[in-house]
Amino acid sequence: MDKQEQSIFFANMVINSWEIQNNRVNKFLDTFSEEQWASEVAPNRNTGIYILGHLLAVNDGLMPLLGFGSKLFPEYEAIFLTNPDKSGLEKPTLQTLKENWDKVNGTLAEFMKKLSAQEWFTKHTAVSDEDFAKEPHRNKLNLLLSRTTHQSFHIGQLIFLVNK
Amino acid sequence: MDKQEQSIFFANMVINSWEIQNNRVNKFLDTFSEEQWASEVAPNRNTGIYILGHLLAVNDGLMPLLGFGSKLFPEYEAIFLTNPDKSGLEKPTLQTLKENWDKVNGTLAEFMKKLSAQEWFTKHTAVSDEDFAKEPHRNKLNLLLSRTTHQSFHIGQLIFLVNK
Repeated sequence: MDKQEQSIFFANMVINSWEIQNNRVNKFLDTFSEEQWASEVAPNRNTGIYILGHLLAVNDGLMPLLGFGSKLFPEYEAIFLTNPDKSGLEKPTLQTLKENWDKVNGTLAEFMKKLSAQEWFTKHTAVSDEDFAKEPHRNKLNLLLSRTTHQSFHIGQLIFLVNK
Repeated sequence: MDKQEQSIFFANMVINSWEIQNNRVNKFLDTFSEEQWASEVAPNRNTGIYILGHLLAVNDGLMPLLGFGSKLFPEYEAIFLTNPDKSGLEKPTLQTLKENWDKVNGTLAEFMKKLSAQEWFTKHTAVSDEDFAKEPHRNKLNLLLSRTTHQSFHIGQLIFLVNK
């Protein structure tokens, strides 16, 4: 495989790992009841629904970071990122979150498909040109990689909703 | 960058992500008390020490899978992989696990340093030649990537030991 094929191959490895995490959340969405999502994953820890909204807001944040466009649900930032679970801010319903989870991931998937392998290795929008010159691993693909491990971190918590 | 440099760059992105997860566990090892490690991460879930041993056994499993050699602690397989936490099998002490965690990760790091970038894209030992020809993403680097997300999954649980 030549250099170009190798970059496509490597980008696909990371995208595939990202999709595996999304699919694990999808499986929870198919199987957990509304009551399970409303439960705390452990005593005095976040509820399932907060973690779901948090993952949704983080995924939505990839839109501007990867240069795809604006966030689809900027209002989720206050509810699920900058404020904690019991902030008193009204949360969307589970049904709304489910639909918007699909919208965000579907939109990201469309844009990712169109991104060339070479573009994956360009800087994401939160890095300055200067920093990127010094730290070229801070590229778009690496950002997706860090979001992949972040998602897996929370999936390890969501799994505690099984049998709740 | 040429193809060779590009492979090194890719391999380092994943190795770096792997090391980030190891370092998060190291930080827990530096800060959690023996009592915290002995606690369940959530009611009726695994104890910290079981999860630590589990991650250690999985990392040790990379030795043969990446072609580096035999496992350093094959006896951990029964205690932390094939049997559950409350199996009744005697577990090593926290101190022993700490030391062996460092040994396994240190040994892996040494071997990883010596692995050429091209070798990272060769098959791991649990895939047949035939399957690898059909699924070339089942290479050594992808295995490390899947172990990275696995580790992050359990770190999301270990964090519940904070304030226990």
